[in-house]
Amino acid sequence: MGKVICVGLGPGDPDLMSVKSDRLVRASTHIAYFRKAGYEGQARRIVEGMLRPDAIEYPMEYPVTTEIHFSDPEYNRVMAEFYEVWAEKLAKLAETETVLVLCEGDPFFYGSFMHLYTRLRERRAVEVVPGITGMSGCWTATGEPITWGDDVLTVVTATMGEEELTRRIRDTDALVVMKIGRNLEKLKRCLTAAGRLDTAWLVERGTMTDQKVHRLCEAPAKVPYFSIAVVHGQGRRP
Amino acid sequence: MGKVICVGLGPGDPDLMSVKSDRLVRASTHIAYFRKAGYEGQARRIVEGMLRPDAIEYPMEYPVTTEIHFSDPEYNRVMAEFYEVWAEKLAKLAETETVLVLCEGDPFFYGSFMHLYTRLRERRAVEVVPGITGMSGCWTATGEPITWGDDVLTVVTATMGEEELTRRIRDTDALVVMKIGRNLEKLKRCLTAAGRLDTAWLVERGTMTDQKVHRLCEAPAKVPYFSIAVVHGQGRRP
Repeated sequence: MGKVICVGLGPGDPDLMSVKSDRLVRASTHIAYFRKAGYEGQARRIVEGMLRPDAIEYPMEYPVTTEIHFSDPEYNRVMAEFYEVWAEKLAKLAETETVLVLCEGDPFFYGSFMHLYTRLRERRAVEVVPGITGMSGCWTATGEPITWGDDVLTVVTATMGEEELTRRIRDTDALVVMKIGRNLEKLKRCLTAAGRLDTAWLVERGTMTDQKVHRLCEAPAKVPYFSIAVVHGQGRRP
Repeated sequence: MGKVICVGLGPGDPDLMSVKSDRLVRASTHIAYFRKAGYEGQARRIVEGMLRPDAIEYPMEYPVTTEIHFSDPEYNRVMAEFYEVWAEKLAKLAETETVLVLCEGDPFFYGSFMHLYTRLRERRAVEVVPGITGMSGCWTATGEPITWGDDVLTVVTATMGEEELTRRIRDTDALVVMKIGRNLEKLKRCLTAAGRLDTAWLVERGTMTDQKVHRLCEAPAKVPYFSIAVVHGQGRRP
């Protein structure tokens, strides 16, 4: 009997992968990962040059990403079917083999693997190896600590409604905003309304070779999916 | 000219250290770390068996931990002096040597190194290597994902006032509570008032060999400093 192991790969720099994930990636012969159709995929890119020559790869290509809005029932139906099909395939493979699933960042923090995990864990042994989150990579890239003393940290997604997002930005010490993409202009308006635009940072591809760190007010109009906004806490410090 | 490098060691399991931190720990000859006087220290414990035989160790012993409350000006005075003295020592050492500072978890996330960082960065080159946070280790230990879809995650410290803590527990999808120690009973009251005690977990020493995972309502009355409470988000999932 085999099993499924999901390894967190960290924020992007392969050197920031854990010793355990590194060892598993280099040793495994069955390796699955998510990607957008037609792209290499972020998880696969991180492990470039590390796989065994005889490793068999299983790219799991999302049937949709942003073409259908996630509030549309059709999005749910298509994605549920996609996860179900792959859970079945990996469960079958794990009857005899150990299957590694690659996941950028930390698998249990907004990761796609969670949707396979809930479908697999009744059928097979599943192990999850945590990773350095993308947000840790991004706040480290800004060169400023994120939380001091008793600071409250709020992590939100920029998909949230404008009024609610503004309220949450006002109501926290430190802030991390995920899933920015097309919501950058809305996020700027919310930060401005909350009086925090001047202290906000935008990090594109944190810890990767093409990392960029901007003051958010100076960020380009179009930013990649792997962008995270950060406002640092200012809590007590002796 | 040397420099100071602070390495995040992750949540406790040495296998969860990054490849970069692992390499630096094994190669360095000048190694500093914080600890409570009379204790080995969590950071030092994680690297047990990894240091070079000729490594010189610099234990930086906190002059106080909980003997004086952090709201007392005397706490501030004593701690500021402590950080100032060590910043000076490490800056001196880094005139010619590379000095590694060990930090459990992720250095920029509630880490003590931040207090040296702000004092050192004007004087010497300082590099920070992120690590897997203690909270990632703890939510992975519970076997349940922390955030789904557009869940809001709030990270608070249990040192907060009771009313405010209850309000924040009510106002979030996913919750992480740090610095529990003596505040466990208060935290239980707040979770109860917010109607979330039944779904809260307490993880002691997440990812370490003596890790314990409890439903928070069944947690022992006295928990170690390295305990984190978790309430998982229940956001959308196809």
